[in-house]
Amino acid sequence: MSLYPRPVEELIDHFARLPGIGRKGAARLVFHLLERSDSDVRSFAGAMIAARENTVFCRECQNLSENDLCPLCSGAGRDRSVLCVVAEPRDVAAIERCREYKGLYHVLHGVISPTRQKSPDDIRLKELLERVGGGSFGEVILATNPDTDGDTTALYIARMLRLYEVKVTRLAYGLPMGGHVEHADELTLLRALDGRREV
Amino acid sequence: MSLYPRPVEELIDHFARLPGIGRKGAARLVFHLLERSDSDVRSFAGAMIAARENTVFCRECQNLSENDLCPLCSGAGRDRSVLCVVAEPRDVAAIERCREYKGLYHVLHGVISPTRQKSPDDIRLKELLERVGGGSFGEVILATNPDTDGDTTALYIARMLRLYEVKVTRLAYGLPMGGHVEHADELTLLRALDGRREV
Repeated sequence: MSLYPRPVEELIDHFARLPGIGRKGAARLVFHLLERSDSDVRSFAGAMIAARENTVFCRECQNLSENDLCPLCSGAGRDRSVLCVVAEPRDVAAIERCREYKGLYHVLHGVISPTRQKSPDDIRLKELLERVGGGSFGEVILATNPDTDGDTTALYIARMLRLYEVKVTRLAYGLPMGGHVEHADELTLLRALDGRREV
Repeated sequence: MSLYPRPVEELIDHFARLPGIGRKGAARLVFHLLERSDSDVRSFAGAMIAARENTVFCRECQNLSENDLCPLCSGAGRDRSVLCVVAEPRDVAAIERCREYKGLYHVLHGVISPTRQKSPDDIRLKELLERVGGGSFGEVILATNPDTDGDTTALYIARMLRLYEVKVTRLAYGLPMGGHVEHADELTLLRALDGRREV
């Protein structure tokens, strides 16, 4: 016999499959939810489906977006001569929080990783080359994480971009080695933006 | 402008309202979910609604249950002369994992707590008194956590139960002070069950 009613066990299973949440932690979250109102839980479940169904990838920068073109790509007041290449959507959010960078972005959705069997074909690299090949960028900033896979990816992209007449820079190592763009404080990220250097 | 598409922000908000999950942690969970298949996310959302809608409180022990009477209360092979009083459904699960206790349970759904404004009327105490008043129990084991609120609740219940002809015991302090029934290892819980003493 399972220890909780079947629907409760099933919800615990779902939570426990999320990264960084064990079964005891999942149980705690579920019991918390069971104390909420019906409408609260329905709204949570609805938000889950809506987030999955109502977001697409921006056809330009590949970031998550509600529309075919995201607000950053379609908006005025952005410097369309600079392109910042990041691994994940949350890296865009981290850099935007600095309120310093005004260029465009390109989201790779991953990095090249031999250990995790991610090849250049598994990330949005083709789309990046097409954009840079379009010829309107003067500089491409490589803002992948300063770890092995991030550095590998940056080097790989830098080499590919030698074909084009574009300055390629890498975020300065203001970021601590092994760290993540996502968790950097704003000052560190500003330093990294200021000190970017040509690859 | 928000940093993520609106449906994504809304789902992050929902996750961030769960206990122990901050906004960055919530964002990580959401991006993980967005990489899952549509059917996976729908099944998670469905499980959430099902857990909320298809569980009731057992009319006897007040534990979460799929039916009017939970499997423990309706099942054969339980000692119906012993009643173990716990604060939360997860405490029932912890004690059941010992495979030692064979009596029945009563789930209070909280403890008396002056600091958190929980009075005796806010927990399932009336139901407990009705059950014990029914007269079929020879012993009531108070298994609330060994912390201030848990001890207060146990003492309060012990005093109320003096009206009835029933032996009232408390889990032995095999549990470390300030600890939680939920997290105790099985040996500690067994010690606590064995060494229970009359209040």
